[in-house]
Amino acid sequence: MTGIDVETVPAPAPVHPAFVDDKAARWLGVEVLRAEFGDVVIQMTVRDEMLNGFGMAQGGMIFAFADVAFALACNDPHGDGSTITVASGVDINFLNPGAAGRRLTATARLVSQSGRSGLFDIQVTQEAAGGETTVLAEARGRSRTVPTPRSTSKDR
Amino acid sequence: MTGIDVETVPAPAPVHPAFVDDKAARWLGVEVLRAEFGDVVIQMTVRDEMLNGFGMAQGGMIFAFADVAFALACNDPHGDGSTITVASGVDINFLNPGAAGRRLTATARLVSQSGRSGLFDIQVTQEAAGGETTVLAEARGRSRTVPTPRSTSKDR
Amino acid sequence: MTGIDVETVPAPAPVHPAFVDDKAARWLGVEVLRAEFGDVVIQMTVRDEMLNGFGMAQGGMIFAFADVAFALACNDPHGDGSTITVASGVDINFLNPGAAGRRLTATARLVSQSGRSGLFDIQVTQEAAGGETTVLAEARGRSRTVPTPRSTSKDR
Amino acid sequence: MTGIDVETVPAPAPVHPAFVDDKAARWLGVEVLRAEFGDVVIQMTVRDEMLNGFGMAQGGMIFAFADVAFALACNDPHGDGSTITVASGVDINFLNPGAAGRRLTATARLVSQSGRSGLFDIQVTQEAAGGETTVLAEARGRSRTVPTPRSTSKDR
Repeated sequence: MTGIDVETVPAPAPVHPAFVDDKAARWLGVEVLRAEFGDVVIQMTVRDEMLNGFGMAQGGMIFAFADVAFALACNDPHGDGSTITVASGVDINFLNPGAAGRRLTATARLVSQSGRSGLFDIQVTQEAAGGETTVLAEARGRSRTVPTPRSTSKDR
Repeated sequence: MTGIDVETVPAPAPVHPAFVDDKAARWLGVEVLRAEFGDVVIQMTVRDEMLNGFGMAQGGMIFAFADVAFALACNDPHGDGSTITVASGVDINFLNPGAAGRRLTATARLVSQSGRSGLFDIQVTQEAAGGETTVLAEARGRSRTVPTPRSTSKDR
Repeated sequence: MTGIDVETVPAPAPVHPAFVDDKAARWLGVEVLRAEFGDVVIQMTVRDEMLNGFGMAQGGMIFAFADVAFALACNDPHGDGSTITVASGVDINFLNPGAAGRRLTATARLVSQSGRSGLFDIQVTQEAAGGETTVLAEARGRSRTVPTPRSTSKDR
Repeated sequence: MTGIDVETVPAPAPVHPAFVDDKAARWLGVEVLRAEFGDVVIQMTVRDEMLNGFGMAQGGMIFAFADVAFALACNDPHGDGSTITVASGVDINFLNPGAAGRRLTATARLVSQSGRSGLFDIQVTQEAAGGETTVLAEARGRSRTVPTPRSTSKDR
């Protein structure tokens, strides 16, 4: 048992149909506060099983959290489902360490889009003791829009 | 229950003392095959709770796996424990989607080091049906060596 | 003769002393419109010798132009000269091709700073025929502040 | 007068037709030693007009040099001319400063390719006094293959 009861994790808000079944976002415990195309705010709490050997939030867990925000931002919840947009790459900078028990917020916004390629900036912050926030990471995601694979379409 | 019994997950091989307690690597189910400075090979299997809403391995989970290889590669297991090396940033390119149930391998190698900064390349591959391997991701990690924080030193 | 008379190229505005002698910025023909720490606007015109074999502005020339904006943004013109800030790395995305004869604008802004490391975003745009602008590139620069090398100090 | 007589700069070796007219490579003074798809070696010498305000080779000039190697590596000189491959982005890490008068070498190699996207690693080194070489930069380029624009085709 890894310390989380999946049933108690809030499901992502109703967004792009393909996200209804996002198991990684559920494992992370992501709560979706806003999820419009190019404008996303989500939160999660750092759990013990997200820590690395130095006792800090593992970079990969911060990235995975940012990746959920990115995926929500680059897939229009009001789209027709004919395409999906996936990450072709991400450049992430880790600025400050994250700590167990802290509430993290990720915001994602569209930077630019041309054709089937997009750029999105994702910022991950951590609430501090005195109500201030610390920036944990700044990520820039590169997206690519492709036809919806048959295996993930609604008619399967 | 998230589908993994932590007791059955192999602990990372004895490496830098700070990794003995790497909970994220344990949650991922990482098996360490080789872990020398600048030369690491690890494996894990994609589980259902690592999938995104498109049914592919979530990019963040692939990143988290690569991040374990990076951390093992940039911290010398034979070091004196006075310093730790952390990721200051990573650029990752996702080349092919990963699938549930597949065995992934991450290799990490030192590209260059000058002073307290290092560059490491991490490649994540997936075994294919016919024994071939597909490259899922190519990541380049930027590391920074800092004094060991008191809270993670052995004498705490 | 490569098509530019250096005497007619405006020198950068008086900024950090180390920039007075920036020969690359001069070759590029950079005009500095604003150069405060974390807030820079510069311009230049694409010349024939900046084109690649496809007749577009070479990516490296767009990068070099962005790099001038980055350098101006991460070095405080009002600093005491004891340190310089250099690029440790840059991630650049090329979004649209640049054309000969067009006027380019680069803006640079501080994204975050912690200790001796900083992140700066640089955007390069091109004026279009009808007065609109096209984004040519979005770059994110990573900076590192170091003591001023003796060979570049003012008392040499 | 910017200090270079274009007539004395060696033209790039006969490669992809589109490179015959690469003016930026000429301005840089690039000499092509090897230019096969995914396997390129080029050289150039750092000139005074490539220096920044700190008296080091400007990052943009090192990038521009690396960009030539990248362009040569991702365009097959034996291709049929129906497509060109351009940089969609590059992540570059600057490791050591370059100096005026020094001979630089850039090598580019294919890392991976899937469909119309490719990844190429470019390393820039500088010859040192005692015959040793120093790594100035490690870059990873992202390429995209597109139909040859009419304006750069041979029949114009």
